[in-house]
Amino acid sequence: MSTQAEHASLLIPGPIEISDEVSQSMAHYAQSHVGQPFVNTFGETLTLLRDLFQTKNANSQPFVLAGSGTLGWDLVAANLIEPGEDVLVLHTGYFADSFADAIITYGGKPTQLKAPIGDRPQILEIEAALKEKKYKAVTVTHVDTSTGVLSQIKPLAELLQRVSPDTLLVVDGVCSIGGEELAFDDWSVDVALTASQKAIGCPPGLSITMVSEKAINVFKARKSPPGSYYASFKNWLPIMQNYEAKKPSYFATPPTQLVQALNTSLKQILASPISERFAKHRKMSEYVKSEVAKLGLKQLATDPANAANTMTAIYLPEGLTPPEILPKLMSRGVIFAGGLHKEIATKYIRFGHMGVSITDESRGEVDKALKALKDGLAEVQDAKKQ
Amino acid sequence: MSTQAEHASLLIPGPIEISDEVSQSMAHYAQSHVGQPFVNTFGETLTLLRDLFQTKNANSQPFVLAGSGTLGWDLVAANLIEPGEDVLVLHTGYFADSFADAIITYGGKPTQLKAPIGDRPQILEIEAALKEKKYKAVTVTHVDTSTGVLSQIKPLAELLQRVSPDTLLVVDGVCSIGGEELAFDDWSVDVALTASQKAIGCPPGLSITMVSEKAINVFKARKSPPGSYYASFKNWLPIMQNYEAKKPSYFATPPTQLVQALNTSLKQILASPISERFAKHRKMSEYVKSEVAKLGLKQLATDPANAANTMTAIYLPEGLTPPEILPKLMSRGVIFAGGLHKEIATKYIRFGHMGVSITDESRGEVDKALKALKDGLAEVQDAKKQ
Repeated sequence: MSTQAEHASLLIPGPIEISDEVSQSMAHYAQSHVGQPFVNTFGETLTLLRDLFQTKNANSQPFVLAGSGTLGWDLVAANLIEPGEDVLVLHTGYFADSFADAIITYGGKPTQLKAPIGDRPQILEIEAALKEKKYKAVTVTHVDTSTGVLSQIKPLAELLQRVSPDTLLVVDGVCSIGGEELAFDDWSVDVALTASQKAIGCPPGLSITMVSEKAINVFKARKSPPGSYYASFKNWLPIMQNYEAKKPSYFATPPTQLVQALNTSLKQILASPISERFAKHRKMSEYVKSEVAKLGLKQLATDPANAANTMTAIYLPEGLTPPEILPKLMSRGVIFAGGLHKEIATKYIRFGHMGVSITDESRGEVDKALKALKDGLAEVQDAKKQ
Repeated sequence: MSTQAEHASLLIPGPIEISDEVSQSMAHYAQSHVGQPFVNTFGETLTLLRDLFQTKNANSQPFVLAGSGTLGWDLVAANLIEPGEDVLVLHTGYFADSFADAIITYGGKPTQLKAPIGDRPQILEIEAALKEKKYKAVTVTHVDTSTGVLSQIKPLAELLQRVSPDTLLVVDGVCSIGGEELAFDDWSVDVALTASQKAIGCPPGLSITMVSEKAINVFKARKSPPGSYYASFKNWLPIMQNYEAKKPSYFATPPTQLVQALNTSLKQILASPISERFAKHRKMSEYVKSEVAKLGLKQLATDPANAANTMTAIYLPEGLTPPEILPKLMSRGVIFAGGLHKEIATKYIRFGHMGVSITDESRGEVDKALKALKDGLAEVQDAKKQ
């Protein structure tokens, strides 16, 4: 039995559709945050995250906090960057600007390396930047939700190992973790941060972060105290370690129902090999992109190698705007998002294809969305001709 | 039909039991955070909070953020206190220490005025402190969850108006808002902060704060930028104003299901006059306290005027500890909390009596808890005698 009323398919780059089991977990009865049943669930959830992020280093540290994805930037900027330290911010859209703002708030000095819209900074440029200055960290948006651009993490990690091995590699994985391949240990990632409502398939309200042993040691060697209270590793580290050891512990009350939902979602995800999940997302993304091309529409991503597998940012035909087309999709039971990148927000729409909408093909949501897009465009264009 | 499986009654000082309707709202299907249906719900929720806090000033500003109650301290410390400014922290237990830590994190200088355990700082002492130094703000824990001590807000507000009218009155209402009388406008409160899982009767995961026009103006006159990114009024103020005006707006994704649950809970609370709700909590608290006294047990609160109406902190009989008695309650279907105040944590237990457990007498939870306490104590004491 579905607990979810009939509703339009939410195919934006997050929040995404959730499974019935995840939805039921949200309705969990009230639990004590320090009672053993919840402590066991939270502890297990933290351990499951290690599999999701693909880390086997027992000293990697997962954090799950009540908060939006944005809180992950505070975690990085307030704990791993000290005032006056330089950070190289690789810019593929809106989210790099915001991450840079967060870094400035806590006294760090971001240097943005910007790519043209739809592209990403190239390895040679990044190498040149790294050789100019000593950076405490490099931040990269794995999937920039504003442009649908995918950054290549592995070559970046290799570059860092080669030219600046002390620099921390921070991956904003908000629209990637659970949908795009990310091998935390193998690629030597130091921080991968995300939110519950993207490719992890949970409702919004959780900030989820994996921190490497190296980054935890960098934190422990800080000269200044963390710049945030709520987002302080100092406050949360013992709590997360205690929960994972199934010991009750208190700093702030965790959102018990959201943690139940995350637990359910992670178990669903990890019931199959994670590589299969990534392959499904890649395959469906290729299909979406080829169908979009057949409609004569261009993507923001300038090259297939730059294109996310969890979403597609699509330029509208000349003269059409999101407020014209989105209601036509809605009337066909499909919700896409409008543009987010300031410079071109009125020229494109965004189609999120992650989670159960991809893994459960019986939902038929991708084809429903593509048909809605085709028919909706035709309707708007016919109306314009008259 | 109840969506909630059979479970022990959660009677700790939060999280608390939730109504079936609130639980069902948690299972809401996925919604776009910028789609009109959710925007309308969030906007209405913010407006409903004005009634809960009893403010009719259109320039009072509600904030609802994904986060634990703790995040409210960051909101205050990072936005309303500038580095180097003094804050008078009235201490009635654990939570003043933590609030002081949060203030220090953002550069403020807390001065704690401490009362003995079970008591609260007296008006004459506070007056003397206020005359010694210029304080940017006074913080007070309305109900200190660690001790069950109730602070008197109205006389404190009157004192401030009289001797230091520029000083902001900041009420930590985490275990009070929705259960204890608080008249935001009439008492000239500047900030009242709380969390969703206490007397508001919602699951944990929302930081809920009301800020006065005066405090917003103090924020706007800041010389330094806010000390937090995620908890920045600058980032959230336009978003909250837009949502309340039913206009989509984006800084970070709100936890849509939790907002649905809060909306449901607020409608349930506000369906009756709020004064009746406070009266019910007072009446039931008096009953609990008289029954506890009949069992020969003492409260932490040294005087009935110091005692919260939303919870009771109860000393155990000499020689008994929480790990001995709490399992006996659990076996009778009742969950109480252990001690939290470091100095005496092993000597007392805490009984939360808020929300549906109070307003819906058909649940019978208070009497069930009192009987469990009586029988559980007898069982432990009988076993000790043998």
